[in-house]
Amino acid sequence: MNYQQMSREELLAEQSRLAKEYEEIKAKGLQLDLSRGKPGRTQLDIMTDMLTVLSRDEDCFSEAGFDCRNYGIVDGLPEAKKLFSDLLGIPVENIIIGGNASLNLMYDAVARALIYGVVGSERPWCKEEKLSFLCPCPGYDRHFAVTESLGFNLIPVKMTPTGPDMDEVEALVASDASIKGIWCNPKYSNPDGYTYSDETVRRLAAMKTAAPDFRIFWDNAYVIHELYEEGGDRLLDIFEACREAGNYNRVFYFASTSKITYPGAGVAIIAASPENVAQIKKIMAIQTIGHDKLNQLRHVKYFKTAENVNKHMMKLAKLLRPKFDIVQEVLNEDLGDTGAARWTNPKGGYFVSLYTMNGCAKRTYALCSEAGVVLTTVGATYPYGIDPDDSNIRIAPSFPSEEDLRSAMKVLTLCVRLSAIEKLLA
Amino acid sequence: MNYQQMSREELLAEQSRLAKEYEEIKAKGLQLDLSRGKPGRTQLDIMTDMLTVLSRDEDCFSEAGFDCRNYGIVDGLPEAKKLFSDLLGIPVENIIIGGNASLNLMYDAVARALIYGVVGSERPWCKEEKLSFLCPCPGYDRHFAVTESLGFNLIPVKMTPTGPDMDEVEALVASDASIKGIWCNPKYSNPDGYTYSDETVRRLAAMKTAAPDFRIFWDNAYVIHELYEEGGDRLLDIFEACREAGNYNRVFYFASTSKITYPGAGVAIIAASPENVAQIKKIMAIQTIGHDKLNQLRHVKYFKTAENVNKHMMKLAKLLRPKFDIVQEVLNEDLGDTGAARWTNPKGGYFVSLYTMNGCAKRTYALCSEAGVVLTTVGATYPYGIDPDDSNIRIAPSFPSEEDLRSAMKVLTLCVRLSAIEKLLA
Repeated sequence: MNYQQMSREELLAEQSRLAKEYEEIKAKGLQLDLSRGKPGRTQLDIMTDMLTVLSRDEDCFSEAGFDCRNYGIVDGLPEAKKLFSDLLGIPVENIIIGGNASLNLMYDAVARALIYGVVGSERPWCKEEKLSFLCPCPGYDRHFAVTESLGFNLIPVKMTPTGPDMDEVEALVASDASIKGIWCNPKYSNPDGYTYSDETVRRLAAMKTAAPDFRIFWDNAYVIHELYEEGGDRLLDIFEACREAGNYNRVFYFASTSKITYPGAGVAIIAASPENVAQIKKIMAIQTIGHDKLNQLRHVKYFKTAENVNKHMMKLAKLLRPKFDIVQEVLNEDLGDTGAARWTNPKGGYFVSLYTMNGCAKRTYALCSEAGVVLTTVGATYPYGIDPDDSNIRIAPSFPSEEDLRSAMKVLTLCVRLSAIEKLLA
Repeated sequence: MNYQQMSREELLAEQSRLAKEYEEIKAKGLQLDLSRGKPGRTQLDIMTDMLTVLSRDEDCFSEAGFDCRNYGIVDGLPEAKKLFSDLLGIPVENIIIGGNASLNLMYDAVARALIYGVVGSERPWCKEEKLSFLCPCPGYDRHFAVTESLGFNLIPVKMTPTGPDMDEVEALVASDASIKGIWCNPKYSNPDGYTYSDETVRRLAAMKTAAPDFRIFWDNAYVIHELYEEGGDRLLDIFEACREAGNYNRVFYFASTSKITYPGAGVAIIAASPENVAQIKKIMAIQTIGHDKLNQLRHVKYFKTAENVNKHMMKLAKLLRPKFDIVQEVLNEDLGDTGAARWTNPKGGYFVSLYTMNGCAKRTYALCSEAGVVLTTVGATYPYGIDPDDSNIRIAPSFPSEEDLRSAMKVLTLCVRLSAIEKLLA
């Protein structure tokens, strides 16, 4: 029954029933966690051979005969570039291989722009009087943290099921030259699981920007992270769109194997136009003699082809899908007709977004917390940690076991209902 | 016979003899390289088990039960910190573990200072009108390149067998607040192989600096890189010296396993006072979710103890020593009584410094190059690539085979003699 249509008496009765349930659950002393967007152990156990694919000294040589144990090759092994190129449909010459974390490459890309500027900059960004960055939200807290830490003014932009609100984005970037970039997580976005529409991608690529050196930070973290064999979302090629629009230098593209192989020991890339790549490589060659090539080679020798990577992703999907199913099942069962919340139902990625009634997310968090269920901090998905609607809760189903996940979801839906009724009675 | 004491006729006769030898060598079409300060293949082949020390999923867990395949632990595994702590005599709480390259940690330390400042800064370094850095030279070209790339004015300081000329250093840092730091490679320095004396270390630690946020960049790259079982150089503890002088925050200490295990896939650290560590960790947590912990664990499980690392270093020394012996042998034989050059004879590290007569290094380089022997670019060991005396040549004996090394050294000494005679006849 829809809470909003209930009488005060009905709400009080429901509240008393749920409160009893809540006290019972609290008494169990649960310790559950829905906050961690990291793979569960079962996912990490399906690629054991990766650990030993380089076992002998002879295994450590690249196709061209380069000893990957030694110094050199600052921008990555050619065969590793080829694998990413095939996998992501990006030309080899656009790719630079980094260390184990794409976040590190993103941070460094912003830091580099501050110190040196980017191709097309009139001066290093740190010499500008004011710096701003667009933050479609809800979004990824670590994106926002990078630009906040590096001194940018964070401007929130509304996320929609087709990507950032492009009317808003276009108006902002056209009029404000302090806006140097936008954070994008374009496929199965964190936390909504939305994928940018073709129109959104084209408008991002073509829009007029007051800053001559505006950059799209295209964090394609879930590019091949499908939950189903078929019917997944399709994302337009941002490079192609930017090139067509005459803005080939506009995009910094990021990806990694963090949620393909090992989150702590994967391989990350930054991809960009050849002109951007030339500038980045020149500076990167000052910063390091080279990233870990043995780990690049491990990935190449383990997977061999992009097709094998996709097959591997389907194995992971088989482990993840039941968890996403549990989330939808419990949400539908417990909240389906209450009107206490709405939520997303993505076909890939790592998250589901739950939207409580406005003003109920923090209270839901507190209730969950008291009952032993940790949620992603409410507000974390917004710049400066402030969700103006106090509504968004990010659900991360991948880490807990199916059993724990179901228990945690039951607590969460109970707390959502309790806080909704409190609000309606207030 | 000493060239400087020869008559013109004697010099002409010697020149004609050497020129003939040179033409014969040139005709051989050699392709040799004395420029690369990287381990040879035999060195990399003595630790094959490192590749497979993590073979099963269960191997990937830390002592505390943390799954090192997954995200987390931004500042490094406790057991990896412990290993470095035991090995280097640095308190665990002073250590942060990074990725595979200490150069990357150095670059990032300077970049961070530019953007945020360091503990004790009045403002981010990039907000200063002028920035300078002291460069003891000859020194490591990649050090100089980092600060040049990041916008510093490089000030050369004379290297001596006891470290940088401290009278010069003290006078400079006391009077010029734009000087924010000094590059130090304090043990078996690149390229001389000199080790700083206790007095040098104490004066660096205690000196008055006009900049309140001056930093010593202490790149202890060859800290345990002895060539002999006994009688190696001893370096004073810089942390202890700084603490005693009341300047505990003054030092950023760097080290890595690049020349202990795999140059391309080692583990690097930055160490500093707890106050510095707190600042660095806070920013590093924005920059990355964590460095490669599997590789940290590989190192820990392969070595187990600091003692085993030192034993391993003696195996490497056994491979390196004959090469350093060849260098000294050929230098002594061919140049010993000519007065055409002087050179260093270090007990560790990776390099030997050869000093030709002033104005002869470039010519020697050109002659070697024509005869098929690649040397480190003359001048590379000085800021902006300019050796004011045109004298220093860095010899890197580790990479070529013993046979190639001997051939290359013979060419080098011949070219040194030729250029000396040219100079004396001019």
